[in-house]
Amino acid sequence: MSGISEGGFGPRRAVPIRRAEALRLLASVPFGRVIFTRDALPAVRPVNHFVEDSEIVVVRTRLTSRLTSAVRAEPDVVVAYEADDIDPVAQLGWSVVVTGIARPVTDPERVERYERLLRPWVEGSMDSIVAIEPTLVSGIRLVEEKAG
Amino acid sequence: MSGISEGGFGPRRAVPIRRAEALRLLASVPFGRVIFTRDALPAVRPVNHFVEDSEIVVVRTRLTSRLTSAVRAEPDVVVAYEADDIDPVAQLGWSVVVTGIARPVTDPERVERYERLLRPWVEGSMDSIVAIEPTLVSGIRLVEEKAG
Repeated sequence: MSGISEGGFGPRRAVPIRRAEALRLLASVPFGRVIFTRDALPAVRPVNHFVEDSEIVVVRTRLTSRLTSAVRAEPDVVVAYEADDIDPVAQLGWSVVVTGIARPVTDPERVERYERLLRPWVEGSMDSIVAIEPTLVSGIRLVEEKAG
Repeated sequence: MSGISEGGFGPRRAVPIRRAEALRLLASVPFGRVIFTRDALPAVRPVNHFVEDSEIVVVRTRLTSRLTSAVRAEPDVVVAYEADDIDPVAQLGWSVVVTGIARPVTDPERVERYERLLRPWVEGSMDSIVAIEPTLVSGIRLVEEKAG
C-alpha cells in the first residue's frame, strides 16, 4: 500500500453522505473503530460490529480502564464510531462517523442474542456488549473532481 | 466484506507489537485516523500520513472547531493516531495506535518540505501540518491460535 507521493491522480472531492446512506454503508462492513476517552486520553480500538434496525451500532468492547471497570459497572459514555472503505492507491472510498451515547446492554435476552450475532475475533478478552445510539451521523465519499 | 457470523475460523490471539515494529507498520501504510476531542466530544478523521525518522507521525488536518481555529492558532493537543491492515474475512492483520502531543509545524522550511511530501487527498480543505510525537505506542497483531 502506498500512494501518497506517487501522484498521477487529480484532486478528490469530499461529498457528504446522508444519514441513512451512512448507516447503510456502516452496516455493509464488519468492523470499525470505537473512539472514546480513557484516563483523560483519546483512545481507539478496532472492533467488529453490526447495525441493528438500520440504526443502533452494536459492538463488544470495554470502554473504561481496568481499574475503573473492576470496581463498578460500565457507565454510559459518549463515543464515536468510525468505519471506512478507502482505496489508498485510487484515493477513492468513504468514511462514516457516528457519535452518540454508548450504553451497556444488560437485558439478558438482548445479551444472549447479541453474543450469538457478534463473535469477538479475539477470545478471552473481557468485554461488554455496548449499543451506540447515533445522535450525530456524518460521512464523506471521496469522488473524482469533475473538470471545471 | 463480511465475516462476523460466517464462522469457519478458529479464535484469534492478539499478540502485542513492540514499539519499533509498530512504527514500522504505521510507516508502511499511507493513511490512518487521527483521534482528538472537538467541542468536548470524541472525534475521528481519516487522513494520509508519513512517518519521519521512524518516529514522528506527520499529517495535514485541523484539530479544532471552526470557531476556535478562526480566532487563534491551533494549540498543542494530545491525540491518538490509529492505522490498521485487517482482513475481516480471514480475521488476521494488525492495528497500531500512537498517542502523543500533536504540535503544529510552523517552521517555514519544514512546512514547505512536508507540504511537498504529503499531498492532501481532498483539495481545498483548510488544514495545518501537525507532527505527532509518539509518547505511547501500542499495537496488536491478530494471529491464529495454536491448538493447545
